[in-house]
Amino acid sequence: MWLDKRITNLFNIQNPIIQAPMAGASGAAMAIATSKAGGLGSLPCAMLSIEKMHTEMSIIRQETKAPMNVNFFVHDKPLINLERDQIWLNHLSKYYSEFNLQVDNQNSNSSREPFNEAAFGFVESFRPEVVSFHFGLPKSSYLDRLKKLGCKIMSSATTVEEACWLEKNGCDVIIAQGFEAGGHRAMFLTNDINTQVGTMALLPQVVDAVSVPVIAAGGIADGRGILAAFALGAAGVQIGTPYLFTKEALISEIHLSRLKTSKDNNTAITNLFTGRPARGIINRLMKEVGPMSEFPSEFPTAGKALGPLKNKAEAQGNSDFSQLWSGQSASLCKETDAEALTNCLAIDALQRFKMITSN
Amino acid sequence: MWLDKRITNLFNIQNPIIQAPMAGASGAAMAIATSKAGGLGSLPCAMLSIEKMHTEMSIIRQETKAPMNVNFFVHDKPLINLERDQIWLNHLSKYYSEFNLQVDNQNSNSSREPFNEAAFGFVESFRPEVVSFHFGLPKSSYLDRLKKLGCKIMSSATTVEEACWLEKNGCDVIIAQGFEAGGHRAMFLTNDINTQVGTMALLPQVVDAVSVPVIAAGGIADGRGILAAFALGAAGVQIGTPYLFTKEALISEIHLSRLKTSKDNNTAITNLFTGRPARGIINRLMKEVGPMSEFPSEFPTAGKALGPLKNKAEAQGNSDFSQLWSGQSASLCKETDAEALTNCLAIDALQRFKMITSN
Repeated sequence: MWLDKRITNLFNIQNPIIQAPMAGASGAAMAIATSKAGGLGSLPCAMLSIEKMHTEMSIIRQETKAPMNVNFFVHDKPLINLERDQIWLNHLSKYYSEFNLQVDNQNSNSSREPFNEAAFGFVESFRPEVVSFHFGLPKSSYLDRLKKLGCKIMSSATTVEEACWLEKNGCDVIIAQGFEAGGHRAMFLTNDINTQVGTMALLPQVVDAVSVPVIAAGGIADGRGILAAFALGAAGVQIGTPYLFTKEALISEIHLSRLKTSKDNNTAITNLFTGRPARGIINRLMKEVGPMSEFPSEFPTAGKALGPLKNKAEAQGNSDFSQLWSGQSASLCKETDAEALTNCLAIDALQRFKMITSN
Repeated sequence: MWLDKRITNLFNIQNPIIQAPMAGASGAAMAIATSKAGGLGSLPCAMLSIEKMHTEMSIIRQETKAPMNVNFFVHDKPLINLERDQIWLNHLSKYYSEFNLQVDNQNSNSSREPFNEAAFGFVESFRPEVVSFHFGLPKSSYLDRLKKLGCKIMSSATTVEEACWLEKNGCDVIIAQGFEAGGHRAMFLTNDINTQVGTMALLPQVVDAVSVPVIAAGGIADGRGILAAFALGAAGVQIGTPYLFTKEALISEIHLSRLKTSKDNNTAITNLFTGRPARGIINRLMKEVGPMSEFPSEFPTAGKALGPLKNKAEAQGNSDFSQLWSGQSASLCKETDAEALTNCLAIDALQRFKMITSN
């Protein structure tokens, strides 16, 4: 079926389509459904407790023998910085007043944990076939231990420089994350969003720079995008936003409703919701405070101060303070389930591979 | 050869490859060389006097019977705004001091003229097969008159909304200009660069939204990009940065030398050099004042105040104040000539069309 078998062989899957791990937006059900259609299911662990990771992975292993990807963030945990938190709260105080909320720095809806010994223990228990990271890689001793377990290692690059760093530091597969992608930019050697690179330009330059297989991410939402990614030298694709439209997605109704009406130019990269740049649908907070700002608390704590505003606003049916992660191709997506979506993407791509041939 | 013949038939050319009109960077020679290889040569007229347009087009018509594209800007000429000019000069005064230059508001290196009656007269004399515009379209009476001359009309869209507007207002072909593209963003219904869209996402959404053929632009520098563009639904490609590496390019040595070492993440969108957002290689001015700023004079006059700084700096061999237009794929380009480049692009693309087929 697929002429390029680098990823299907390496991961032992049927279709070189990776369901993007979307922390907070997907769990066991989406990974299982994706794997049923021969794609690589992913369990995003960045926002899960160790107990929850075990629960989710147990469900997955009961349901399917298919290879799995588990994903972790590898940021440095920030030091407590009450002064900086206060600056961010002060910046938001007018919204607190508007909603008659007391400023209260004790909320904690921002529980993103970096990869650590407990997470390693979880991986050791389940030995997922693929372990992927966002924001770089964990320290090399972890990488060695993961490889001894037989796990293939993936991480995302937003520049050629990051791709070369990942290859040098032991990645088996590199995801080239184009500017179009939804959610957190993987960037870890730069924090300059002005120089982030679109998929059309990034992908061939990364492919030329590294020897390992490259997965394309960013703006890919149908068979056309998959074919384009392979044309540019990708060995597979990682797809996010279309999976937010599946019944297995764990996003709020308000998030889905905004996705369903989002157009090509309705998103921007913002650091307001977590402290790190991530692409989401533009809402009131992004319009009024950002989309980028110097004031949010350090990743991942910036969302803490937004929690009460988000909750109150969402209760009133508005998304003014919600993080509405989305890539730039939401308008190409439709509601479905993750198995059907994965099948559709594969069939659409394979048909287009045939159609495009010149004769 | 090419399975999709929409553009080759419409423009009566052999290869659906358009040499991007790059004002100030190309003239008759590049257009002629491109046409010799069966691509569509373009004469950028935005920075030419009417006399110079006639001279260049006379040379072209003497050299080749191939169809030609002439390109114009369609901005509104700004009113004289000495106050705003002074703000911009004040902002640059430290650099004037550094170079021991007197602030002098009488320079004029920014002679971009919008399409006007004299330009129409020029078109009427030469009846180029294609007339393309940047920043929208001229008023409809001009469009009617151009069409009566038999000219096909093209313009660029940076969003689906702009593409729909261009189709509704009479464009025969729409160029979808992705975020990766070098030079001026064509944006005319928005001025928000935060929501500009990458080629991978923009192209299929534009293709779905309009009925006319869509040309892909932005990040395309080799056969891989051309194949990807067709995979995404394009009927042709417009290619810029690779043509800056040809011997027919009119760019400075310092510009070429920066292009030759530019990496994927060495460019940003900046409004400092003309007043409108354009992608160029990052230099000192962009680092220190931008890349985007609220202070530059209105398009196209912002460059006026930079002229003396640019001249002095370039004389010292540095590009700190030069506009170094480039897309995000400069690292894929190499020095050549425009005929060889066009041939190479076509052959590379056609070979890749065959290679990618699954069996």
